[in-house]
Amino acid sequence: MKEDFKEEIEKVISKMTLDDKIAMIHGVHLFQNGSVDHLNIPPLTMSDGPMGVRADFEPDKWMPAQHASDEVTYLPCNSALASTWNRSLARDMGSVLGEENRGRGKDISLAPGINIKRTPLCGRNFEYFSEDPYITGELASEFVKGLQEWDVAACVKHFALNNQETQRLEVDVDVDEEVLRRIYLRAFHKVLKDGGAYSVMGAYNKFRGDYCNENPFLLTKVLRDEWKWDGAVISDWGGVHNTDKAAVSDLDLEMSVRDNFDDYVMAKPLKKMVQKGKIDESYIDKKVYHLLLLMYRLNMMEGFVRKCGSYNTPMHRQIALDVAREGVILLKNDNKTLPLKRDKLRKILVIGENGDRIHSNAGGSAEIKALYEITPLMGLRSHIGGNCKIDYAEGYTSRFRADEPSAFEDGGTNWQRLDAIRKAAEANWQEASLENGGGKTQSVIKVDKKLSKLRAKLREEALSMAKDPSYEQVIFIGGINHDFDSEGIDRINMDIPYEQNELIEELLKIRPDLVVVMVAGSPLNMTPWADKVGTLIWTYYNGIEGGNALADVILGNVNPSGKLAETIGHDLSDYGSHVLARFPEPETAHYTEGFKVGYRFNDTDNVEPLFPFGYGLSYTSFEYSDPKLSLDDKGNKVITVSIKNIGKVSGFETVQVYARREGAEVFQELAGFEKVYLRAGEERSVDIAIELDTETELSKSFNKSVKYAIGSSSRDIRLTI
Amino acid sequence: MKEDFKEEIEKVISKMTLDDKIAMIHGVHLFQNGSVDHLNIPPLTMSDGPMGVRADFEPDKWMPAQHASDEVTYLPCNSALASTWNRSLARDMGSVLGEENRGRGKDISLAPGINIKRTPLCGRNFEYFSEDPYITGELASEFVKGLQEWDVAACVKHFALNNQETQRLEVDVDVDEEVLRRIYLRAFHKVLKDGGAYSVMGAYNKFRGDYCNENPFLLTKVLRDEWKWDGAVISDWGGVHNTDKAAVSDLDLEMSVRDNFDDYVMAKPLKKMVQKGKIDESYIDKKVYHLLLLMYRLNMMEGFVRKCGSYNTPMHRQIALDVAREGVILLKNDNKTLPLKRDKLRKILVIGENGDRIHSNAGGSAEIKALYEITPLMGLRSHIGGNCKIDYAEGYTSRFRADEPSAFEDGGTNWQRLDAIRKAAEANWQEASLENGGGKTQSVIKVDKKLSKLRAKLREEALSMAKDPSYEQVIFIGGINHDFDSEGIDRINMDIPYEQNELIEELLKIRPDLVVVMVAGSPLNMTPWADKVGTLIWTYYNGIEGGNALADVILGNVNPSGKLAETIGHDLSDYGSHVLARFPEPETAHYTEGFKVGYRFNDTDNVEPLFPFGYGLSYTSFEYSDPKLSLDDKGNKVITVSIKNIGKVSGFETVQVYARREGAEVFQELAGFEKVYLRAGEERSVDIAIELDTETELSKSFNKSVKYAIGSSSRDIRLTI
Repeated sequence: MKEDFKEEIEKVISKMTLDDKIAMIHGVHLFQNGSVDHLNIPPLTMSDGPMGVRADFEPDKWMPAQHASDEVTYLPCNSALASTWNRSLARDMGSVLGEENRGRGKDISLAPGINIKRTPLCGRNFEYFSEDPYITGELASEFVKGLQEWDVAACVKHFALNNQETQRLEVDVDVDEEVLRRIYLRAFHKVLKDGGAYSVMGAYNKFRGDYCNENPFLLTKVLRDEWKWDGAVISDWGGVHNTDKAAVSDLDLEMSVRDNFDDYVMAKPLKKMVQKGKIDESYIDKKVYHLLLLMYRLNMMEGFVRKCGSYNTPMHRQIALDVAREGVILLKNDNKTLPLKRDKLRKILVIGENGDRIHSNAGGSAEIKALYEITPLMGLRSHIGGNCKIDYAEGYTSRFRADEPSAFEDGGTNWQRLDAIRKAAEANWQEASLENGGGKTQSVIKVDKKLSKLRAKLREEALSMAKDPSYEQVIFIGGINHDFDSEGIDRINMDIPYEQNELIEELLKIRPDLVVVMVAGSPLNMTPWADKVGTLIWTYYNGIEGGNALADVILGNVNPSGKLAETIGHDLSDYGSHVLARFPEPETAHYTEGFKVGYRFNDTDNVEPLFPFGYGLSYTSFEYSDPKLSLDDKGNKVITVSIKNIGKVSGFETVQVYARREGAEVFQELAGFEKVYLRAGEERSVDIAIELDTETELSKSFNKSVKYAIGSSSRDIRLTI
Repeated sequence: MKEDFKEEIEKVISKMTLDDKIAMIHGVHLFQNGSVDHLNIPPLTMSDGPMGVRADFEPDKWMPAQHASDEVTYLPCNSALASTWNRSLARDMGSVLGEENRGRGKDISLAPGINIKRTPLCGRNFEYFSEDPYITGELASEFVKGLQEWDVAACVKHFALNNQETQRLEVDVDVDEEVLRRIYLRAFHKVLKDGGAYSVMGAYNKFRGDYCNENPFLLTKVLRDEWKWDGAVISDWGGVHNTDKAAVSDLDLEMSVRDNFDDYVMAKPLKKMVQKGKIDESYIDKKVYHLLLLMYRLNMMEGFVRKCGSYNTPMHRQIALDVAREGVILLKNDNKTLPLKRDKLRKILVIGENGDRIHSNAGGSAEIKALYEITPLMGLRSHIGGNCKIDYAEGYTSRFRADEPSAFEDGGTNWQRLDAIRKAAEANWQEASLENGGGKTQSVIKVDKKLSKLRAKLREEALSMAKDPSYEQVIFIGGINHDFDSEGIDRINMDIPYEQNELIEELLKIRPDLVVVMVAGSPLNMTPWADKVGTLIWTYYNGIEGGNALADVILGNVNPSGKLAETIGHDLSDYGSHVLARFPEPETAHYTEGFKVGYRFNDTDNVEPLFPFGYGLSYTSFEYSDPKLSLDDKGNKVITVSIKNIGKVSGFETVQVYARREGAEVFQELAGFEKVYLRAGEERSVDIAIELDTETELSKSFNKSVKYAIGSSSRDIRLTI
């Protein structure tokens, strides 16, 4: 944190009228608070978008401004970034977002999203890093540091417990306090303190009956009193409900999606209460203080020199490509089918809608107008175009077609439509309807027999092409898209939609060496064919250069190094939040699984997932030896281990250290990791700093003697010490 | 030209059935001819697009295939390329197009368009180079060489006399044969012989009563007999009409926009005539011969090694940026307002729809799906974003708005709609209707009072913002778009539409230092305000990096070096085709202006244009001295002249040499040019090779003694010799 400017700020506040103060603490445009012109206090301009600066909106209408100059660098989603396990890439990616926000004239970037992935079904998982708070905190802190280098504030979201989209605006969360702190708050603590984030966004949901944006426990007790954090608290858009509670809470700025700015909770209603003496003005001053402090920190106040920004630069694209390359995860390569031998290829076949579609333009508030987006097919073609003919068959489709009747009988919001689409898709286009809270039907999808026929036709076409022996290789690229991975909706199950399983199984009969690529933002149930497929790649929504990164891995220009930062279960029975708790619970969500989130469940209760946390293959392999434990200058534990690349190609390895406590409530927890690059044959000694849970003092049950397990994934432990 | 493969080809033909041959000489998909599988003869795959490889079509339906992997590098239009006067950039740009075509799996690129700009109103001018055949031939030859390096054929178009879009499918051209050869065929001759183009596209229109695609004079007499050219002649899509004429003409391949492939003129109907003995099969063999020769030249036949391609590479973007930078033309800089002092700028205002819109997605067959397109506003913001606040006001609009009623009462083709839009726009949205040949009204635009009100509102907003003294600079970016510059339509006049003149004049009253940027594909009538504006930039549709190039020039990162390759007249009275001939003539176009096309008219008849051919300013200035005339090894004339950069910044100068013949029908003609880069203070001796018209022997009237005028434009002659 920069110096605190206490004196200057108090001087400014002393000159402010109540109207000035009220203007500052609520939105007067959809993404801007009020300025105070007579004191030269500019407005704070905000922008959505952990994956890039979002397109401009009309100031007072929730619709795009249709500018052509608001296209930006589309960054890989945070789940992809987490899969790199690379702190310096996290810093670089944050820096891109910061520089682009400044270039677009924004002051606050509503990013990163760091909620814990409690369930694979959460629609917003793609925006989050991991099921584990340690890796989340490590990478998100670096991200924030990079972002804020550009005199732009990170707004870390959503504080806290926004772990489901189902009834997110109302759901109350019931969670044990120790679990809350050790699992759900730990990364926030890290990012606010070590990362130095200048602002945080309150979540929509409730905790202990109070909305998070007005929550005395979260905002006052934890954030201000315990953590001594003096950044700005900004509400999620429309997440403030009660003037009296908001007034005395530690919320600093109310934003909303509505255009009746004067009627915001912290606008006229709050002003009236102050005038009537029901709320002491000192509460308002405290909010203004935090906002002014933020503006001083951003060098926005008169007399300060602020950094320039820029967007769509070649360097930004290169960083997006670097992240995308290290974020691709090789899950299976049983017969060394990959990398393909590019010099020998003359004709290959790509099947699957995700081979040739973009994802940047959807997903809710994370959607952006990408300057461009390289699809997998474009990536492959632009790498081996010309001499290698790359044919394409859609194979399956998620899309409406022009020659079909509109699927909707009536209107409804986008999210209602999305929800209806999702339900219909999951039901393979049987009739589906969406009901709102009061039981009124909002949207109806008619049974679309044509689409079903179209799917059969597309499948037949793909299968018939796959039978053509002149194709030297067939690659299937499927998965899901932002009709599923989206703000405002959770999935119903982990199933792969659009009849893809049937298609993959048929393809495997024709092509046992089929390369399968799954594109998604959350784990999918791949059990129907996971044992039968020999070659499997996993990639999250991977940004502007995503297709090039995938082609690089498939063709061996890049040796894959991505590792799962979340568990891919066989199905929901591999997740603590579904086995030990109910999901979804729309009124009160009871986190009865306790600490058993992600691999903490699998490893403690010995439930083997399909692909474990920390897992990911390489085109080479690594040997571990000679572990040592020591203390650094500050008395922190450091593990040192020797790693040797025993294969034929250079590559990255991410060495992971898990703290194990036999008999404790949680069997093992990630305590450190380092990513190293080794040339073929090279051996290196790697130091891994160990960070034990900062809240451990609260947890008697964890005061067991610790053993450290060192390995290549949570279930591929090579050494213990 | 590569070796001719005569023996191999004859052997292949001897094995072909009549069906095989017929398959090869007509389209069996919309952009592909028939293959002969039993002889391993692949199909020829073609793609539109001088500005990039066009998006894929459905094979048998004239609609986009909606692929996401067919986005490409959007290149500056040929008019922009011509403005660079830079042969090596022309070669580079051709090379980008070639490599991208190979990357996209295409064999023939339907480019470049090299028709002469006879009138500023031709809708397709932006696709063409110049009003002058010498610079067209020089640059287009380099372009073709670069393109064909990638084992992709150029298809030079449209052969010949496609100088208007009005009734282009039917219009007959009446032109003096010497004018035809010296003005309209000269660049084709150069590009086919020196450039080595492998194919040419026949024009839609007629010459001497015969359609160009079946024209005995153009195809047989000129192309084959006189020029001895053995490349392939491909019809424009749907430009073949008579089986008997096409059969015996030197047309080799018939393509069309229709999906009844078997009914094409050179499909079943031709086969029947051969079977009935009405056409000798040797005519068919000749066509097949040329197509096979093309395929051998492209290394497409078995046993040959063909180059790989690639698209969307960083190098392609860099070349697009290089061309765009050198293509920007500085027309006025009276008070040295440019370059702006970027370090001092804190707040500027950009006004005008063309400041924030893209142009890649329209224009007819030249439209492409650009991977991205940097708008001027984005270019400026990404260069000086953040600290310099760049506000934007639309100022005027060409667009339909969502809250307006549809402007069309009924359907009609895209081109009919375009034409209606154009007419309505030119009439400032008074009622407009389009009638087809038979007098039937196709489309009607209702009087749109709302749009007129919207324009007034936008203008008011822009003017009121321009009055704000906190803006240190105001930049207006206007002009036209592909609603005007488009295949299939000519403009009605040179006027600037959308009530921009009024806006510019009002702005000049508020901001005498206004920077005006005109974006267009053809000259506009700027006389209403040309004298009043001190700073004026001209830029054609400038490709994927166009906005960055413009920002580079405005901010002085790049010293402008573009020069007009066409005359910008005050109005139509500055053009020979309008003063000495009628335009448009829908049935027979009489080119009664003769040689007096472009500057040949202005300089011979002494009609001073607004900005002359060859004109363009720099941020520095150059001194010319010491002219010499000598002969090179081959006996060709060479002019040597000393050029000195006498300003303070480095920059390019294009030295132009005009051949003058006192008393001849044409006063002066471009005979040579060289572009040189000189550091501030640097002096260099420049050699300029002189090319006199290759057809001069036909022209008795030109056998006068020649004097050479050396200068910086056609009307800024510094030395004569």
